[in-house]
Formats: sequence, C-alpha cells, structure tokens
Amino acid sequence: MSERLVVIGGDAAGMSAASQARRLRKPGELEIVAFERGHFSSYSACGIPYWVGGDVPVRDALIARGPEEHRARDIDLRMRTEVTELDLPGQRVRTRDLESGTEAWTGFDKLVIATGARPSRPPLPGIDAPGVHGVQTLDDGQSLIESLSRARGRRAVVVGAGYIGVEMAEALLGHGFEVTVLNRGEQPMATLDPDMGRLVHHAMDGLGIRTVGSSAVTGILTGDDGRVRAVTTDTGEFPADVVVLGMGVVPETTLARAAGLPLGAYGGLLTDLSMRVRGQENVWAGGDCVEVLDLVSGKERHIPLGTHANKHGQVIGSNVGGDYATFPGVVGTAVSKVCDLEIARTGLREKDARAVGLQYVTVTVESTSRAGYYPGAAPMTVKMLAERRSGRLLGVQIVGREGAAKRVDIAAVALTAGMTVERMTALDLGYAPPFSPVWDPVLVAARKAVAAVRAAG
Amino acid sequence: MSERLVVIGGDAAGMSAASQARRLRKPGELEIVAFERGHFSSYSACGIPYWVGGDVPVRDALIARGPEEHRARDIDLRMRTEVTELDLPGQRVRTRDLESGTEAWTGFDKLVIATGARPSRPPLPGIDAPGVHGVQTLDDGQSLIESLSRARGRRAVVVGAGYIGVEMAEALLGHGFEVTVLNRGEQPMATLDPDMGRLVHHAMDGLGIRTVGSSAVTGILTGDDGRVRAVTTDTGEFPADVVVLGMGVVPETTLARAAGLPLGAYGGLLTDLSMRVRGQENVWAGGDCVEVLDLVSGKERHIPLGTHANKHGQVIGSNVGGDYATFPGVVGTAVSKVCDLEIARTGLREKDARAVGLQYVTVTVESTSRAGYYPGAAPMTVKMLAERRSGRLLGVQIVGREGAAKRVDIAAVALTAGMTVERMTALDLGYAPPFSPVWDPVLVAARKAVAAVRAAG
Repeated sequence: MSERLVVIGGDAAGMSAASQARRLRKPGELEIVAFERGHFSSYSACGIPYWVGGDVPVRDALIARGPEEHRARDIDLRMRTEVTELDLPGQRVRTRDLESGTEAWTGFDKLVIATGARPSRPPLPGIDAPGVHGVQTLDDGQSLIESLSRARGRRAVVVGAGYIGVEMAEALLGHGFEVTVLNRGEQPMATLDPDMGRLVHHAMDGLGIRTVGSSAVTGILTGDDGRVRAVTTDTGEFPADVVVLGMGVVPETTLARAAGLPLGAYGGLLTDLSMRVRGQENVWAGGDCVEVLDLVSGKERHIPLGTHANKHGQVIGSNVGGDYATFPGVVGTAVSKVCDLEIARTGLREKDARAVGLQYVTVTVESTSRAGYYPGAAPMTVKMLAERRSGRLLGVQIVGREGAAKRVDIAAVALTAGMTVERMTALDLGYAPPFSPVWDPVLVAARKAVAAVRAAG
Repeated sequence: MSERLVVIGGDAAGMSAASQARRLRKPGELEIVAFERGHFSSYSACGIPYWVGGDVPVRDALIARGPEEHRARDIDLRMRTEVTELDLPGQRVRTRDLESGTEAWTGFDKLVIATGARPSRPPLPGIDAPGVHGVQTLDDGQSLIESLSRARGRRAVVVGAGYIGVEMAEALLGHGFEVTVLNRGEQPMATLDPDMGRLVHHAMDGLGIRTVGSSAVTGILTGDDGRVRAVTTDTGEFPADVVVLGMGVVPETTLARAAGLPLGAYGGLLTDLSMRVRGQENVWAGGDCVEVLDLVSGKERHIPLGTHANKHGQVIGSNVGGDYATFPGVVGTAVSKVCDLEIARTGLREKDARAVGLQYVTVTVESTSRAGYYPGAAPMTVKMLAERRSGRLLGVQIVGREGAAKRVDIAAVALTAGMTVERMTALDLGYAPPFSPVWDPVLVAARKAVAAVRAAG
C-alpha cells in the first residue's frame, strides 16, 4: 500500500527532501505532496542581493527548479497553498488555497516541516511604508528593484549590517545610491569579533558606504505621498529614498508551536541527528526553521543558510525514503563579500567561547593571498582562537581581498576534526606563488597561536 | 660554553633552521655558521617561472632574505663556499671557497644538512649546448632570460610536463614563443591520474601549447654556431631556438652518501619525526634533500617543495635550539597553473593506491567555482578516490579555472584527519553565491563517492 509524504515548504530543504525521497521510492510506493504558499519553488534567496545589484541579470536564474520540473518528477507541488494547521494526532494538515480561498485537509503518513524563516520586522511606525523593503523572497527582490527606479532621490538606508545588510549595501552602491548602513552594534558584521568587524567598517568607508554603529532604529518617516523619506534612530535622522531591512530572520515555526512541537531558545524546531523532530516518529524538519548543533560549542544555534537547508533536505529525504543519513552539525562557517572585500568566519567568536566557559587565546596576523612578490598579492587578516592548555582550534575569522573567503574552509575542516593549532602548523596545504605565500596565512596564524597557547600556560 | 651549529645550504630549509635556532639561542650560547655554494640565500625557486615569464619584474623580488640580513641576525653565512666533505666522527666539515679556492675544516657540535636537490639532467648528446637551460637556480633563470632575447627564432621546446614544465610553457608563451612540451608519459602532469592529465592536455592545446606525449628525448642538435637548433626524440625531431629542461629533480645527497648516512629509495636522507637523521644524535636534515613520510600511503616519498622545506627548517631550528617540534609528514598536496588553468592534487593517485595494496573507488564530477548563476562561475572537474569498504578519503585531484587550486586544501585537511567521504558530505564549508555553489564541488564529489563505496560493496 502506498504511503503519503507531505512536505510543508517548497524551497531548499523541503524540495531537496522530496527529491531525495523520490529517488529512493517510486510513485507507487510513496506519494509526495508539497505545499508552498509563495509564487516560487527551490530558489536561491542568497542570490537576491546579486540580482538586485545587477550581477545576476534575471530573476529566473535564481530558480533552481520550478514547480513544473518538480511535478515532472512525480512530486505533487501545490503552489500558493498555505498550511494553516497541523493536526499531528490526526496525521493531517489543513491548507488554504491563497488564490481561491478554498480550505482542505490532507492526510499524511510522514511529514516534513520546512517552513523556513521570516525576516525580523520590528513593529516600528512607518515600517510598512512604500519604499521600505525586505529581501527575503523573490517577490521582495522584484518589489525592491521596481522601487529603486521609482525612488525620488539616490539616498538609501540599509538597516542592519549583517550578511544581507552588507551585500545589499554593495547592490545599492551599484545602482548609484549613496548608502548608509545603520547598525545596532558598534561594528558591522556582528558574526565577527568587533576587532575584525572594525576592518570591515574601514573597508566599507573606503568603498563609500557610510556605516553608523550603535544606532537603534526608532521609526520610518514618510513624505506627503506616503513614501519613505527618512529613518529615525536614537542618534539622529537619516534621509532615505529607499530603505532595505536586513535585520536578520527568525525561524518560521508558528504552525509547529501551535502543534506543540519542541522549539529551542531561538524559536527553531529541535531535531535529532537524523533530522527527525524530537519526540516524533514520522515528522522531520530542516532548513531555516530548525536549530542545529554547533559542534564546537556543543550548543544549538539558528543558522539560516541555503547550504545547510540543502544538506538537511538530503538527509531527511534519505531517511524518509528508507535509507539512512545524519546531519552531524555545523561549525558555523559563513562567507560573504562587499565589493572586493571578502569576509569569512567559522567556529566560535570570543563571546561564544566565554559563553560556554572555554578559556582561549587569540592571535591576529597579517599576510597575503599569494607570494608577496606575485602580482595581485592582496593583504589578508586572520584571527584565530585556540583553547587554553589543549590548544584546540576554536575559531577563525578572515577579512581580506581575493582568496580570503574560501580559505576559511581549511579551518572549517580542522574544527570538524578537532585539530589543535599545533597539528595545524604542519598541514600540507597547496603552495605555489600564484596561490599562497610559502606559509599559508592560516598556517602563520596557527604558528602564532601555538606560541600564544604556550605563553598563556 | 658556546656550541657551534653548522648548516650546509643557505636556502629555505637551512636558513629557516638557522633563523629559528637563533630565535631560541643567543649568539653567546650558539654560534651559527652556514655555507652556501651559490650566489644567493633564501630565495624562492618556485618563483623562477614567474620571473622568467615577466609576472615578477626583478630577480631580487624572489630573495626573501639576503646574506647581509642573515649576518645582521648573527648567522655567519658564508656564500660561494662549498662543503666538500663531511667528517662525522670528527664532527667537522671541509669547505672550499669557490672564489679563492681556499680549503678549510670547520668543527661543529650540531649539523644541519640542507643541500637541496639537483635537476635530473640525463647525459644526452648536446645537453650542455648554449640555449639549453635548467630553471633550478636564480643563475639559471638569469641565463634563460638572456638566452630568450638572443634566440634566433621563436620556437621553444620544454622537456618534461610536470609542474616546472607547464609553468615554463606559460612563461615562454608570454615571450611570444611557439611552445612544444615533450613528455615521456602519455599525458602531462604525471602527478595526476592520466584521465585528469588529459584535461590539462586539452586545456594546453586551447592555450596554443603543443604537448607531445609518450616521447623520450634522445639528444640535442646544435647549429654551426654551436647553439641548440633541435631536440630529437624517439618519435621525431623538434626544431628549437631555446630548450628548457623540466625533468624534475633528485635529492642532492652526495656528501651524505659519502659519509654513510641513511638514504631512502629516492636517494633522499631519512630522518625521524624531529627531522634528525636516523641513527644520528647531532645531525638534522630537511628540505629537498630528504624523503618525507606520506601519511596516506605510509611510505617515504621525495617531494621537493619550498613549503615543506620551510616547515622542516622551522622544526629543525626548534629542536636544535632546545625546544621541541616535529614534522609529522605530508599528504602530497600540490597546486599549479598554466595561464588561467588551475591544477591541484592531494593524497594518492590510482597507481599509488594500488602500489600499497589499497582497494578504492573513484568518482569524477563536474561543477563550478561559484553559484551557476553568478558571473564568472567557471567549470571545475573534481576526481576523488575513497577506500573500498571503509570509505576513507584517499585522494583528490582538481582541474579547473579560478578557485580550483586552493579548494584542494579542503581535501588536504580531511586526509590529514583521516576522514571518510561520508563524513565529508556534511562538512560546513563556506557558501555564498560568489564563492561556491550551494553544494561545494568537493562535497558533490564526496556524495558521489559515498554512493560508489556502497555500490562497490
């Protein structure tokens, strides 16, 4: 007899799960029904800043697989259909067709919750005014692009200086806007320690992006036409012809909460290593709506990233399809760029280490992306944290130009393997003058960290 | 009472050892005397192709630290002084001043052998003719640069299609030469499996570099002026106005052999993990004259690379200076490029795995350096070897454009940690559209390798 899998959410995690389950189970064995409330399936939200900025010419380039493609693979993907209730004891979900308003119940044998995340959008006065934009969905992106051409002037304010904030600053700069980034923290990129964030701040200054730190937004002012004209903060007023909100996202777990499923400190669903929701037999969850285990701190974290969502989906689909796979956790790797400035981090920041009671040393080194004598050698700053006594690597942050971002992968693998900085100094990394100094910047940092661990006793 | 350290060889390994020993021991505690028979100290031989090609404008850019700089740090570096005999029982070395011819003995308490490697230069007829060049030393480079401007025509033949050979092909192309690379093996880059070497071959074709495989050089023909005019092989004759020899190097261990020190299968000195010569109390060796432990195969190999030489020197200097350090071994990482083609490898090739009795599976995947929709996304081919049954990663080879070479570091660290390909599929690598597809090419290969390991049973 055929079972039915219901998937809530038609983006990375949900559709990866559906696709992988379909690879393992034929339509006669497993019926797969997926519900997506939006207009698009399987798209790259991470690509939106580059589409808005014009690097990616058309919206559809961001769509990895459209609804028809999924349907052609025997996945019954129903677009513009919102799941409004989760009846776990009854093994069914209630849906509403957002076009017709029709409601219906659909039963399931197995359920995947992949409801994603929603942007933090504080209830500030004026926040819904025309000219104020989120950048979470393709619809958001389209609306922003149209707004840019309608803007009265060329002043843009970005609220938030995290990944989305700095990427959007670059995109707006590319449209000829005068860009101001308002940031609650002292330095941009709060996912870095402040000393490394300061390097980003200086580089953004150099690019002509004004970053205002320690600045909390209090409201949005509109003109006579109702359109945004300024952003007010506790430190002053910033004229704006367009405003982009990049204040991060929170797990979209409204349905899960109502159904009594277990949520963590960040509001994300809690799962076991097979991505099964804790305490549930037939319910899995993945993507931006779950919390993941940080392998370095041993704590759950919320890290909304497409690359994790895809991996979750793959694991869920394997398990749903009767195979076996696990998602062991993350080490917190993230990379980004603002124009030619590359920013990367993995593992723990100083405050993360302190929060879990780890004592550590830090070192910061300046090196270059290539041999110093090779054309294009660009400066790079590497900060490394190592545990006191044991010398275990705890984290790495890198700010530099070409070649800086993906160098963090060296540290990501070393963290996963639990390497000490002493062991890292002997790593056999690729060396040739066009690609690295004879001591790779990560090795230079590791050598200095070894000395710091010894000195700390 | 002050001890004396004698260092034979004034390049990467020798001078790194001397410098590190000096950091740890004051001149009153340790006298350091170093002998170098050439004209230069501490230079980057790996940079010579880029100097010849014009990317690096001046020779001295390749010199990391000149003799005067070493002397200013209380290292008595004696240039143009050859060590001609090693008297181990007598704890002394005999030297000859190559300018004056004066011979002398110098006693030591501790000895570092860092005599490097010498180019393979088979005794072919005509091989010493004007217009035939090695590219091992700065003098070689200078002589080649002068020769290029004196060449009758614009036909260059490179003998050997390894790292030096392909890098020199690029350099000669940059000088407007018509370049033919003669290669003993079927495909260029014998450090790759032939299927990956074929990709390099095709790319070199596309760059206008003619590569002739399965071709053994039998001699050099000269013109009436005594200068090279052609290279003869068992398959034909190749007209040449200049010839570059890139046939690899062998450990320079003449002195060590005469002194009865232990040499391995490749003719390199054998050391323990502290880089002390096996069976010796006060003799260390490092750099291109030693063999190193391959951590994947468990065998000794000869891998002449500046990055290893520097690490060896660092370890030796620490131990000589009374501290403690080890060089655990290598995984065989190497990166190179020909114009914009990047080439990388780490771990075992198929034949290496077979040679040590490992059963393995291989997979090859095509991916891109960035998200497919992001401008500049370049194709990349990743080949991965994993052990049958255990799924342990054995090796990775990558051929592609921008972003291909240093991606091999992910595999280098994973090999060092003994990871399985299954574990690798969950690696938390840096993802953002300008830097990687949502599944990094290395992860795509790992996923496919997992399936291949299962299928092989």
